[in-house]
Amino acid sequence: MNEPFRKPDFGLEWLDADGPHADIVLSTRVRLARNLQGYAYGSRARVNDREAVYKTVQAAVDPVATFEGAEMLQMRKLGERTRRIFLERRLVSRDLLGPDPSTAPTGAAVVVSERDPLSLMINEEDHLRLQSLMSGLRFTEAWSVVDRLDDEIGQNLSYAYHHQFGFLTSCPTNAGTGLRASALVHLPGLVLTKEIERVLQGLAQVGLTFRGLYGEGSEVVGNFFQISNQTTLGKSEEDLIDHLERIVGTVIQTELQARQVLIRDAAAVTEDKIWRAYGLLRYARSLTFEELMNLLSGVRLGVSLKLLPDLRVYTLNKIMILSQAAHLDEAAGRELSTPERHAHRAEYVRRMLETEGSAA
Amino acid sequence: MNEPFRKPDFGLEWLDADGPHADIVLSTRVRLARNLQGYAYGSRARVNDREAVYKTVQAAVDPVATFEGAEMLQMRKLGERTRRIFLERRLVSRDLLGPDPSTAPTGAAVVVSERDPLSLMINEEDHLRLQSLMSGLRFTEAWSVVDRLDDEIGQNLSYAYHHQFGFLTSCPTNAGTGLRASALVHLPGLVLTKEIERVLQGLAQVGLTFRGLYGEGSEVVGNFFQISNQTTLGKSEEDLIDHLERIVGTVIQTELQARQVLIRDAAAVTEDKIWRAYGLLRYARSLTFEELMNLLSGVRLGVSLKLLPDLRVYTLNKIMILSQAAHLDEAAGRELSTPERHAHRAEYVRRMLETEGSAA
Repeated sequence: MNEPFRKPDFGLEWLDADGPHADIVLSTRVRLARNLQGYAYGSRARVNDREAVYKTVQAAVDPVATFEGAEMLQMRKLGERTRRIFLERRLVSRDLLGPDPSTAPTGAAVVVSERDPLSLMINEEDHLRLQSLMSGLRFTEAWSVVDRLDDEIGQNLSYAYHHQFGFLTSCPTNAGTGLRASALVHLPGLVLTKEIERVLQGLAQVGLTFRGLYGEGSEVVGNFFQISNQTTLGKSEEDLIDHLERIVGTVIQTELQARQVLIRDAAAVTEDKIWRAYGLLRYARSLTFEELMNLLSGVRLGVSLKLLPDLRVYTLNKIMILSQAAHLDEAAGRELSTPERHAHRAEYVRRMLETEGSAA
Repeated sequence: MNEPFRKPDFGLEWLDADGPHADIVLSTRVRLARNLQGYAYGSRARVNDREAVYKTVQAAVDPVATFEGAEMLQMRKLGERTRRIFLERRLVSRDLLGPDPSTAPTGAAVVVSERDPLSLMINEEDHLRLQSLMSGLRFTEAWSVVDRLDDEIGQNLSYAYHHQFGFLTSCPTNAGTGLRASALVHLPGLVLTKEIERVLQGLAQVGLTFRGLYGEGSEVVGNFFQISNQTTLGKSEEDLIDHLERIVGTVIQTELQARQVLIRDAAAVTEDKIWRAYGLLRYARSLTFEELMNLLSGVRLGVSLKLLPDLRVYTLNKIMILSQAAHLDEAAGRELSTPERHAHRAEYVRRMLETEGSAA
């Protein structure tokens, strides 16, 4: 089969930075967890179940307009590097790929829409995971496209549903609406002013939680925080979405205030920090992903504060995704050693900053 | 009187980097200490002595061809900032300026030749300090111009001389020839390969010593070491000069070998270090002098290794001298605060790197 990511922007429309507050909110994600009646799900699912689910969902997806022309990509049939690329693009989860990087679980698959920012994972923790990923703060919009897809697919499937608990899911925290929504926000102002702890504690008090860039268990790097709801039970989807939109909106305002404080009280130090980050990205010959993320954080703040006017958030987003290990290996056409990868990463970053925006 | 340093290169010909091994040897300095018969010297000298010495030397210097057209500049008559600029240019010593920065000791003066890399300090630790400062490794040449000047001036003066001890000096370590010769060498290769300790211990074994950039008691910054003879007694000037030329030559060879080792065993790490230093100098908005020296050290190594082909050692030398505090104050036309100075320094460095050599 074709390697779908050879389309350079495959599944990466959200990098465009065309959504509201896109300099602060890298992306909004909304996903629904669904399971099929009559098949075991989660860790209880056997190979038989997984195969049957795959076939049933394939048949259900086929007539769905959103996925017109899209292939259902079985993880097993893709090369290991391609799977890693899908993960780096946030098109699939670690759970979908399973514990053994050399293969992938039976029936694990993804469909990525060609027309909408929508995808569907099959045989992840739940049978179906419907997901929308959009640039900027767009909970309502992302929810509405996922909801529509859920309606379309749901017509052709019998979902596991309980009159009291709602949609049944592999992990009880997802039961009810099966909805999890999150925004990936960049909060360097709150980190630099040391207000971040207070803000994160505030999130817990309103039923929200945060993670790093790559979901559950991932560490915060580059001042990127993924803010999401903790539970889905007992609230309507619309309430959850409204709540998140409002709270994340407040976080953005707090971040903007922190930036004003920085500009007022520590303009020189902040500018120096930003330009040093730019200088290192522009000239370093070796970069780890973590250092890159931290430097990109500084430069992103600079673009947001209009200190680096010729550079676009889009370029920074692209660097962040395309300079990850599997993407670099793919560009090199081979498995790079760790030092080689750091060198290739630095070279890629230099080339991007030279061609997609120079600064004084 | 005129502010002589307004000639932008006043006393700075040695920055030209036209001497042998000028990428490693910033400068060679040879100085002779002389005292006049009949006047107390050093800490025993009273105001009367100092005034008389000043006048006697002035009369003796007047007919000397080397100083044709040169003014004898009394430190007291210069502004405080001008004195600091002279110090930063290595035209005068801390000793000449005395302990109180707002004034200067009676009779303390300097004459700087317009045609040769020669200067003469009056009423420093000794009555006369004749000095030559040249680019590169040039002990023999520097010695010969100082020796000639000594002959010229000596005809008009009666030096304090003892048939057994030779020329008498304020500090006994200078007695004998009164000669001290030094080379300011840049040894990043030996520092990075951790061989520097061994080399410095070797110097002590052959009667040499090392200091930082600004002489006695000054710390090593930016991997610059000032290597000089420890005593002058009991050896001819020619022997001392030959010895230094040979030993410093060996140090240079050891440094070059260390650089080969770096290129062979740690090329990627070394290149990365060099380019990061360049990137920070190119974009930082605030630089302390110490950080600047450390970054310049990396960039200088890069120029020397031909990694930064469009940048000249001359530019780096100039940055090093002209970005010091008094020079920055002078350029700004006022006394800068410390944070302002760091900002002006960074701005000056950026401008120099932009206009006097860009790198890929």
